[in-house]
Amino acid sequence: MAEADEVNNKQIILRDYVTGFPKESDMILSSTKIQLKVPEGSKSVLVKNLYLSCDPYLRGRMNRIPLRNIPSFTPGSPLQGFGVSKVIDSGHPDFKEGDLVWGLTGWEEFSLISVTDTMKIPNTLTKIKYTDVPLSYYTGLLGMAGLSAYAGIYEVCTPKKGDYVYISSAFGAVGQLIGQFAKLMGCYVVGSAGSNEKVNLLKNKFGYDEAFNYKEEPDLNEACTYFHRRFLNIIFLSNCRYFPEGIDVYFENVGGPMLDAVLLNMRIKGRIAVCGMISQYNLEKPDGVQNLFCLVSKRIRMEGFNVLDYYHVYPQFLELTHQYIKEGKIFYVEDTVEGLEKAPAALIGLFTGGNVGKQVVVVAHE
Amino acid sequence: MAEADEVNNKQIILRDYVTGFPKESDMILSSTKIQLKVPEGSKSVLVKNLYLSCDPYLRGRMNRIPLRNIPSFTPGSPLQGFGVSKVIDSGHPDFKEGDLVWGLTGWEEFSLISVTDTMKIPNTLTKIKYTDVPLSYYTGLLGMAGLSAYAGIYEVCTPKKGDYVYISSAFGAVGQLIGQFAKLMGCYVVGSAGSNEKVNLLKNKFGYDEAFNYKEEPDLNEACTYFHRRFLNIIFLSNCRYFPEGIDVYFENVGGPMLDAVLLNMRIKGRIAVCGMISQYNLEKPDGVQNLFCLVSKRIRMEGFNVLDYYHVYPQFLELTHQYIKEGKIFYVEDTVEGLEKAPAALIGLFTGGNVGKQVVVVAHE
Repeated sequence: MAEADEVNNKQIILRDYVTGFPKESDMILSSTKIQLKVPEGSKSVLVKNLYLSCDPYLRGRMNRIPLRNIPSFTPGSPLQGFGVSKVIDSGHPDFKEGDLVWGLTGWEEFSLISVTDTMKIPNTLTKIKYTDVPLSYYTGLLGMAGLSAYAGIYEVCTPKKGDYVYISSAFGAVGQLIGQFAKLMGCYVVGSAGSNEKVNLLKNKFGYDEAFNYKEEPDLNEACTYFHRRFLNIIFLSNCRYFPEGIDVYFENVGGPMLDAVLLNMRIKGRIAVCGMISQYNLEKPDGVQNLFCLVSKRIRMEGFNVLDYYHVYPQFLELTHQYIKEGKIFYVEDTVEGLEKAPAALIGLFTGGNVGKQVVVVAHE
Repeated sequence: MAEADEVNNKQIILRDYVTGFPKESDMILSSTKIQLKVPEGSKSVLVKNLYLSCDPYLRGRMNRIPLRNIPSFTPGSPLQGFGVSKVIDSGHPDFKEGDLVWGLTGWEEFSLISVTDTMKIPNTLTKIKYTDVPLSYYTGLLGMAGLSAYAGIYEVCTPKKGDYVYISSAFGAVGQLIGQFAKLMGCYVVGSAGSNEKVNLLKNKFGYDEAFNYKEEPDLNEACTYFHRRFLNIIFLSNCRYFPEGIDVYFENVGGPMLDAVLLNMRIKGRIAVCGMISQYNLEKPDGVQNLFCLVSKRIRMEGFNVLDYYHVYPQFLELTHQYIKEGKIFYVEDTVEGLEKAPAALIGLFTGGNVGKQVVVVAHE
């Protein structure tokens, strides 16, 4: 193999397992060498990484015991996540040099990807079908975040026209899309986010009926008009200003006190799709949720789901969403940082709400 | 109307709304007069009450703000609940003197029941079909408790043969039956209860595969072998001794720390049917449940239900359960007290676990 094929490969390495709130110093920018050729006889694919996706679930993989049933990262090795890449060399018959792909890759400039990886998350790269949209969309809108929104709304929550839908973390990678899908289904949609900038975008760009900055909601214990006043101990929605009739469908992205407040305001036979609980990922001891009796008194169904169970509906999701994008019915806001070295700060920013929209790291522009 | 028709009517009156743990003195034995005739022109039914059902949900009706969406009791008026009665006089064409009925009645010797009551709970009396079983069964096994078990298992949880099923408060009015239904469906069934007497009956009379006394379980934080050790803060099932493979279906009757422990031990795609949360009814501030992230990591469906939504399946439930009783496939243990004056203590006993089986108050033997 020619000497010229070996290049430097910058990587973001996990220093050690993390407890509590992650710090930039938990991740190290490092460099190694990599041959730009797939080893002889291997069916692997060598890719150049273009865009990497920052997702809250990655925090769970930094624990010694993973938060979900996805393996923890290995200290001393690069982080992994979903990304958009270009094939440099391939030993696999389904891929050839120059192909644009999305899937699970490393937080590094070049990755050698074993397509027969036995990890439970989708272990094959997917060839990118539509290139008439920004390629970075495949880290979010047309990737796992988008599919999460689609599965959550069409397969788990199944709102009907006229339903009252509430979305927390509504400006996040998943949240943005849920509200727009729900609006297209004829629902009344309210979202919350952590800044007035996000709130304005939700209302004015995404067409949410209402949106509010949860950080600015006063403690409104006194004002709740819905039942279960005796259980009331928290804020946010508790005056029902945004939902005088209550909530039919709640798309849960944050957990903790927000969930407690929502439970009080759910309607009879409401549905809660639990996609994530970002407020809890860095806590040593999770918040206790007190209003679960509402599940009984209001016959609520609360269901956790994982996008990986819905990978089979990706093709129909892609067709629908691509069409909506082309018709200008769906918008998507990304927050991009340039350069792999900025990835650790971008990831940590998810937990402080620093990002405005889907957080993408640009490793290279093709 | 003849003077002889007026008799004394002992009643159990709610003194005032209750907060915290109920006391016997929250209920008063009182007496009034009642005409043993339905008023001229009324379509009401006058019944003599035989058996009254003590149910945990009655506690919620003692609050100023009811715990469920069933109206609170009125201070100064008798409690209400399900019971078995005999028709003394009827203005309603569907009922005649001597009929045995079950349904919502007063905690008193005689009740004048308006069959067109607009309360949301079933407002019609139901004529008793089978009298070859103890009539008191219609307060529990063949009444709302039995229908709760049937709906919970056949409509909400839908366990498959071989599923691991766990039932808390397994010796309660509902719990007894759930485990027996689940066994008849071919499940592996474990129940917990609050005394060794109950545990022995679960194993030896009801055929549970395992049962344990939750009061005797040590704190086993260290011993949990299932994932989410970082979230672990409680006891009970946490060493998985009873569920080395985890729990597919949990029938929730108690809430609080038990739910937290169960969440840690649920299997992927597990189902939790939430029937009640008896441990929480007397608390000013409910316990916080910390392990809800398990809903996401294990894609769990948790669903509250109310038997009143399943009243339409009562006929098929009755046929199945009556047949099981006649075939000796289902047993039911009742704890009876004799005399209306013992009703307050019997009701309170539900919350200390004093009863062994379904708690029934015998007001009169026909």
